[in-house]
Amino acid sequence: MADEALFQFLHSEIIQYVNSAESGESENGRCVSKLESMGFRVGQGLIERFTKDTPRFKDELDVMKFICKDFWTSVFKKQIDNLRTNHQGIYVLQDNKFHLLTQLSAGKQYLEHAPKFLAFTCGLVRGALSNLGVKSIVTAEVSVMPACKFQVMIQKM
Amino acid sequence: MADEALFQFLHSEIIQYVNSAESGESENGRCVSKLESMGFRVGQGLIERFTKDTPRFKDELDVMKFICKDFWTSVFKKQIDNLRTNHQGIYVLQDNKFHLLTQLSAGKQYLEHAPKFLAFTCGLVRGALSNLGVKSIVTAEVSVMPACKFQVMIQKM
Repeated sequence: MADEALFQFLHSEIIQYVNSAESGESENGRCVSKLESMGFRVGQGLIERFTKDTPRFKDELDVMKFICKDFWTSVFKKQIDNLRTNHQGIYVLQDNKFHLLTQLSAGKQYLEHAPKFLAFTCGLVRGALSNLGVKSIVTAEVSVMPACKFQVMIQKM
Repeated sequence: MADEALFQFLHSEIIQYVNSAESGESENGRCVSKLESMGFRVGQGLIERFTKDTPRFKDELDVMKFICKDFWTSVFKKQIDNLRTNHQGIYVLQDNKFHLLTQLSAGKQYLEHAPKFLAFTCGLVRGALSNLGVKSIVTAEVSVMPACKFQVMIQKM
């Protein structure tokens, strides 16, 4: 519980700070992209630790399953609830109660702020995948808080 | 282990980001003070969670012991190694292997960067104490990495 709280509070502070530091015309876009790149580096670091003693992954799907189970559990204390793929390089990871959105009101009035609360995690996934040799683009969408979907598009080399 | 790593990586990212965002004349001072105030708010939040089911503290020393044991263990996975006081409102908390300094080289060449790596934690302690009704000034000093001392000066009302 302690760790979760620490991560949550720290994450909120970062959002608030980055948001105020990146004030300008394209304010929101730059804030989101800064948060994404912070997440990317943290994801890179974390996955190195997590996979230190893991056997080699069979394929891309095997990597994605690791992200949904082990990686997600370590960071967010629960697994991804649903993983879908079109078997052509697109994966959709659904979290029905996303840890970092649980502190926002579940109504519609804060939907516009959701991207800021998801950017770090998009980067986290992209960074983790990147260090496992999978280049990707990760986006997120929320329809009803605190559920959210992360879409991973694998970039073929 | 996972959580520790997450906190460590996130903490490094914050330092790096704040350091680059607060570039200017009094750069280093502003960076340190921003980090301190982020720590303050996180400390306030954390202590509320941690003390939810704790009996009321007897006195100031009792509060300090809680910070050194329970609070420190939750955040840094170890207790403070040594707590000293002059019984006149000054407490020195010594950590012989401070979590957030373990990733810096132990030599002297990075000593000048130590304040950035301690500012968040100074704020954390000040915030936690503040929400327990103890107003304080918290400073830190390093002589040999990764050992460090936090000095808490209680501000009498």
